[in-house]
Amino acid sequence: MTTALQAQIDAYVDQHMERFIGMLGDLCAIPSVAAQGQGIEPCAQAVANLLSDAGLAVSIMPTAGNPVVYATANGTSDTTILCYNHYDVQPAEPFELWHTDPFRLHRHHNTLTARGVADDKGELVSRIAAIMATKHVLGELPVGMKFLIEGEEEIASPNLEPFIKAHRDLLQADACVWEFGAHNADGHPVSYLGLRGICYLELSVQTANIDTHSGIAGSILPNAAWRLVWALNTLKDRDERIQLPDFYANVVPASPRDMELLAALPDSDEEMQELFGNTSFLQGAKGVELRRREIFEPTCTICGIGAGYQGAGQKTVLPAQAMAKVDFRLVPNQRPDQVIAQLRAHLDANGFQDIQIRLVGAGRPSRTDPDDAVVEHLVAAAHDVYGRAPHLWPMSGGSGPGYLFAEEIGVPIISLGVGYSGARIHAPNENIRISDFRNGIRYMAALMTRMGNQA
Amino acid sequence: MTTALQAQIDAYVDQHMERFIGMLGDLCAIPSVAAQGQGIEPCAQAVANLLSDAGLAVSIMPTAGNPVVYATANGTSDTTILCYNHYDVQPAEPFELWHTDPFRLHRHHNTLTARGVADDKGELVSRIAAIMATKHVLGELPVGMKFLIEGEEEIASPNLEPFIKAHRDLLQADACVWEFGAHNADGHPVSYLGLRGICYLELSVQTANIDTHSGIAGSILPNAAWRLVWALNTLKDRDERIQLPDFYANVVPASPRDMELLAALPDSDEEMQELFGNTSFLQGAKGVELRRREIFEPTCTICGIGAGYQGAGQKTVLPAQAMAKVDFRLVPNQRPDQVIAQLRAHLDANGFQDIQIRLVGAGRPSRTDPDDAVVEHLVAAAHDVYGRAPHLWPMSGGSGPGYLFAEEIGVPIISLGVGYSGARIHAPNENIRISDFRNGIRYMAALMTRMGNQA
Repeated sequence: MTTALQAQIDAYVDQHMERFIGMLGDLCAIPSVAAQGQGIEPCAQAVANLLSDAGLAVSIMPTAGNPVVYATANGTSDTTILCYNHYDVQPAEPFELWHTDPFRLHRHHNTLTARGVADDKGELVSRIAAIMATKHVLGELPVGMKFLIEGEEEIASPNLEPFIKAHRDLLQADACVWEFGAHNADGHPVSYLGLRGICYLELSVQTANIDTHSGIAGSILPNAAWRLVWALNTLKDRDERIQLPDFYANVVPASPRDMELLAALPDSDEEMQELFGNTSFLQGAKGVELRRREIFEPTCTICGIGAGYQGAGQKTVLPAQAMAKVDFRLVPNQRPDQVIAQLRAHLDANGFQDIQIRLVGAGRPSRTDPDDAVVEHLVAAAHDVYGRAPHLWPMSGGSGPGYLFAEEIGVPIISLGVGYSGARIHAPNENIRISDFRNGIRYMAALMTRMGNQA
Repeated sequence: MTTALQAQIDAYVDQHMERFIGMLGDLCAIPSVAAQGQGIEPCAQAVANLLSDAGLAVSIMPTAGNPVVYATANGTSDTTILCYNHYDVQPAEPFELWHTDPFRLHRHHNTLTARGVADDKGELVSRIAAIMATKHVLGELPVGMKFLIEGEEEIASPNLEPFIKAHRDLLQADACVWEFGAHNADGHPVSYLGLRGICYLELSVQTANIDTHSGIAGSILPNAAWRLVWALNTLKDRDERIQLPDFYANVVPASPRDMELLAALPDSDEEMQELFGNTSFLQGAKGVELRRREIFEPTCTICGIGAGYQGAGQKTVLPAQAMAKVDFRLVPNQRPDQVIAQLRAHLDANGFQDIQIRLVGAGRPSRTDPDDAVVEHLVAAAHDVYGRAPHLWPMSGGSGPGYLFAEEIGVPIISLGVGYSGARIHAPNENIRISDFRNGIRYMAALMTRMGNQA
């Protein structure tokens, strides 16, 4: 984009920063906690008002759960950007760990703190602010804009798939800007070109009606904890190789292009080691190989396990029930339904017909081609704003409903925004940096301008 | 014992049953909960008063914890019986599951309900009542009597070993009557001629400073839950064989005499299956072999395991810490210190140097020779009172400090008393049957008479 255009956008953003922070403060003051059924309607309405004030046509559309806020605006080009965001937030508990009221935006030096300020209200406001800036400077929007803003992201989007399937026509676009975007500690923008899939299961076993005295029954009754330990042990060996039949059959390994992207990323091994207090990573991986493993290796994680007595001291009980939460992260082209079938077959083949499997949540993996034109625009926009290319991860280790957009709408997904590595999303003292908030607005405006060929 | 003598004792017992129940009610009204530091001094004093009223010389002796009530009485023979009992009780919680006030003796038909009525106040009162009855009928006691009544049995007797070691001379006796005695549902007396040992350990592992997002770290960071599952899996195979080196080296198998005793016991397989809701026992054992396994096989029981998220739904966390409570039951001549050394060596040899072992509680196994003269007296006394031999188990599956008496004093241990299979000890609505209480008094009186050669 021309220096002159950038300067005009920057001037508008800088003149209106207090207004944008005020918009964000108003949204954060509404405790729209989906898990607790709070503040949903008022927040949907407040979001609709902000979009309407920015000149978009807005509908609040019902679902079987919380409503979706849908908005559109025309642009001067045929290109359309779809923004996926959400207006619900995680619960603020535990309140006692917050240094300030979680539902009142607190400003301190370069930091804005509140529940939802990063995830996802700051992202949403930054995009509305970018629309306001771009429209002001160019007179009209360079691209068409669409928003799908759901109210159930923090409770695993139970109604998103039917909504997307029912409204494919409304959601057609050339690019989907994902809900979040990151910066590293130095303010360097970071983008993820995809998401791993997830298959989150609860495994459980019951071996008797009641817990028993371990002295009386230890030699004669089956023990649910032992059954579960033995069963889990068969799922993954100590070299981290997952033992389900054909688990790796559909895995697409990292391509040479992926490895090139990974090699271009800075090493953060030491930073991570310091954070976690570890002396080494699994398999002794480091550098590029560590980053490859981080996103291209599927996982089988025990997220939780519980049976019997876990209190202080001694209780001599033989547990009748045991439970584990197991989270498989999936890479292209693995599918959750296949993993569940493989797991059932594996358990049965190993004599563990007694282990029950319950699906808690699932989503397929999705990727964006790093050589897609949309990614080129993203890189160009980063150069406009940050003077350098973003750190491009070929995929994120995390998961999300990106596959619904990729599969149902066929739109490439990119990420940019206002977050950073210290944002504490889902945790007490969630925050963003005002400098990242400003840059996130400028980055979105630059992307719109680049994609509308107004550069 | 002569029918005439038995009739005199029975007459005394029947005339004084209301008084004995009153004595028991007074003790049960004192909430002597060692775990909560309640009612200890008043209960020790009340027990001392009961013993003193029955003509014994009583001392309340200090320990590093709760005091021991020690009492003696001379008899007309050189024979002495030592009773091991305790005046402390388990906590009554959860209160809401009690049908009546746990600290007020509730009488209903043949049942007396209160915390501690079975474990161990009913046993204690029955022995005092037997002394009263025997003395009344014979004029003097036929045997010397000693009581060691501790106040910390329900918190694992932390000060019993030093007390016994310091007072070996005071505790010399020809037989030790253990704190509890049982009846089956039909009122048939049941005795256990020994106790398994126990080695109760907490195994734990920490793999990082903090829990991590399973999407970010699932492929690269060690997982404490996985480490613990893999380590536990190596301890026992799915055929129930414990894998520690030399674990079975010192095991003394059941002798032909033990097998004879086991064969003489009634089958309770179906009753147990009904209680636990199981279709089969481990290894398909039944009958005599089930009973042999129940007490003569050492165990490795996972009493509890915990790591990560155990709540409802999905939390995608990679746990940094994991913990398991593991209870080894030991048979002669296994020792807890050897098991700990074997476990450490085994874990180290299998690459689990990161698994920490913490000793929670331990005790050695102990046995009484089934052909000891004391057991002959016990059987004869059962014939006097019940008209039949007791069910004699060569050992109990449970554990306790019997080894201290066996090793330090060299006294054979027998059990008889007032409990029954439905007594709910340690649980809400703890109870005894008045008929068993009466028979327990008569049984103790008969044993004293038999051992004093007054039969």
